[in-house]
Amino acid sequence: MKYIQLSHGGGGEETNDLISDLFYKYFNNEILLKAEDAAVLEVENKIAFTTDSFTVSPIFFKGGNIGKLAIAGTVNDLAMMGAKPLYLSSSFIIEEGFSFSELETIVISMRDELAKSGAKIVCGDTKVVPKGSLDQIFINTTGIGELKSTEISAHNIKEGDSILISRDLGRHGATILAAREGIELVSDLGSDCETLWPAVEALVEAKLNVKAFRDATRGGLAAVLNEWAQSSEVCIEINENLLPICDEVKGICEILGFDAYDFANEGTFIIAVAAEDEEKALEVLKRFDFSSNAVCIGTVSSERPKKVILHSPWGSRRYLELPKGELLPRIC
Amino acid sequence: MKYIQLSHGGGGEETNDLISDLFYKYFNNEILLKAEDAAVLEVENKIAFTTDSFTVSPIFFKGGNIGKLAIAGTVNDLAMMGAKPLYLSSSFIIEEGFSFSELETIVISMRDELAKSGAKIVCGDTKVVPKGSLDQIFINTTGIGELKSTEISAHNIKEGDSILISRDLGRHGATILAAREGIELVSDLGSDCETLWPAVEALVEAKLNVKAFRDATRGGLAAVLNEWAQSSEVCIEINENLLPICDEVKGICEILGFDAYDFANEGTFIIAVAAEDEEKALEVLKRFDFSSNAVCIGTVSSERPKKVILHSPWGSRRYLELPKGELLPRIC
Repeated sequence: MKYIQLSHGGGGEETNDLISDLFYKYFNNEILLKAEDAAVLEVENKIAFTTDSFTVSPIFFKGGNIGKLAIAGTVNDLAMMGAKPLYLSSSFIIEEGFSFSELETIVISMRDELAKSGAKIVCGDTKVVPKGSLDQIFINTTGIGELKSTEISAHNIKEGDSILISRDLGRHGATILAAREGIELVSDLGSDCETLWPAVEALVEAKLNVKAFRDATRGGLAAVLNEWAQSSEVCIEINENLLPICDEVKGICEILGFDAYDFANEGTFIIAVAAEDEEKALEVLKRFDFSSNAVCIGTVSSERPKKVILHSPWGSRRYLELPKGELLPRIC
Repeated sequence: MKYIQLSHGGGGEETNDLISDLFYKYFNNEILLKAEDAAVLEVENKIAFTTDSFTVSPIFFKGGNIGKLAIAGTVNDLAMMGAKPLYLSSSFIIEEGFSFSELETIVISMRDELAKSGAKIVCGDTKVVPKGSLDQIFINTTGIGELKSTEISAHNIKEGDSILISRDLGRHGATILAAREGIELVSDLGSDCETLWPAVEALVEAKLNVKAFRDATRGGLAAVLNEWAQSSEVCIEINENLLPICDEVKGICEILGFDAYDFANEGTFIIAVAAEDEEKALEVLKRFDFSSNAVCIGTVSSERPKKVILHSPWGSRRYLELPKGELLPRIC
């Protein structure tokens, strides 16, 4: 089996072979193996439920690939609700002629990324479409998590809260853009793509007064902060000076005329926390490699409710608006 | 908004507009409106969890469209486990330039189909990809249902059980094939696409000794019966004479050289039931329009374990094999 053929998606013998040789092999778990038309799960209490389709191009990029992203993305959406990721579905739509070995690489990345949160893939679907009706491969993952805190919500942010960011901004967007534009960087700029649950779990277990979590994916930091300002009817004031952005990301933004605040991230999250727990939250975040440079970037006020204000290093201020227009297609 | 643009999938202002004007408008429910990165659900006991991506072409066909199919397909996968469909996610991947009014028609069909089972869409995702990277629109739906019976499984079928079919075979496959080949039929042949939960619920509530349900989707009747014969290590003997296939489907199979047993159905299910409850099960099925012609097509024996035997009207017999080879791409 060197290339994926239409028959691998037909529901007959070849589909069964693909499932055994690839999905059962790497996603191997009792629930998946027993699943018939659906998997049977036992869950307790309240659950979180989220879905995401991944269409990123190129499918392999520095720091990850579409498979790693498909797991981290959905697991992170659960984590951002304070929910422990438990069960995922995975649905592949594959273009006829796609390389089996590339598909295997993607599936292995998914397995490795699942291990970081302990979530399991328990059901799936595979469609193969004729050459030309899809560019390479799209993956949908849908996840179920167990809510560990019911206090976390974009509606709970109050005046005086601190706004933290787990790491430097804009890496995923800049990496994909550089790959597409053929910009060769001498540096090791790569996507921040990562499963955030370990840090979120530690923050929840530390019983800090966390108000909200949000990973800054499509729409970037600008989208998250505007949504929070709207939902909680507060003003969020950010100190531009404190925003961590690496030189490579700054350079790509300058060359191509983008704003790093709008760039998608895939392993970077924003935390709204009561001011008295700010230091403790930063201590917890610094325990993890992917958030070892976590920092406070601003505070919540009542200055201009529903608005995000950016304070420049030169004392000027401007609104940070919700991104508008074409942004970057197929970024995730 | 006449056409879907890349900015509708960018995560910024236009994405928010699309969500409000379309998805919130038609899928309107408290859980969806409150959902942030994930929806919060309360579920009890055991749940069933299933996913399916829909890539059907053409997207509008006689008897349905990709939206109706995306709801019926996932709801039916839950129903076939004896699970009451409760919550669905929906994820749209849309080609740039897709017509807004066609998207609205699809979404309205989804809403109408949801009403037949009472399931709700509680979370979603929208991606827009550049013209040419996808043919029109693909939809993933992933569903959660509450198990109403834990006795239903492809592993529970025993010698002596009766095999029933809810209606005539092959309509969905024949309809799509006819549309693609430009075969104009004077008749009203259309897809069987339908939500099966009402009939399944009635069968479960009647407390009949049902062993297994399965909708004969990709791979058709041949795939279902072979899977059952394998899983339960029994022989399934089918009387070809009793298999309901309408003249139009027979005609299309003859013209194009296909076998109706391999054709996908989207609202036709097979029931394995203890012989003593066969008549009662047929009575229940006949209460519903979409299964008013339900009929017994064979029995389970120990003749050739793991095999499906087809008895012809002329007394000959042959194995009905698992479909192999290319079948029909983008049938669902």
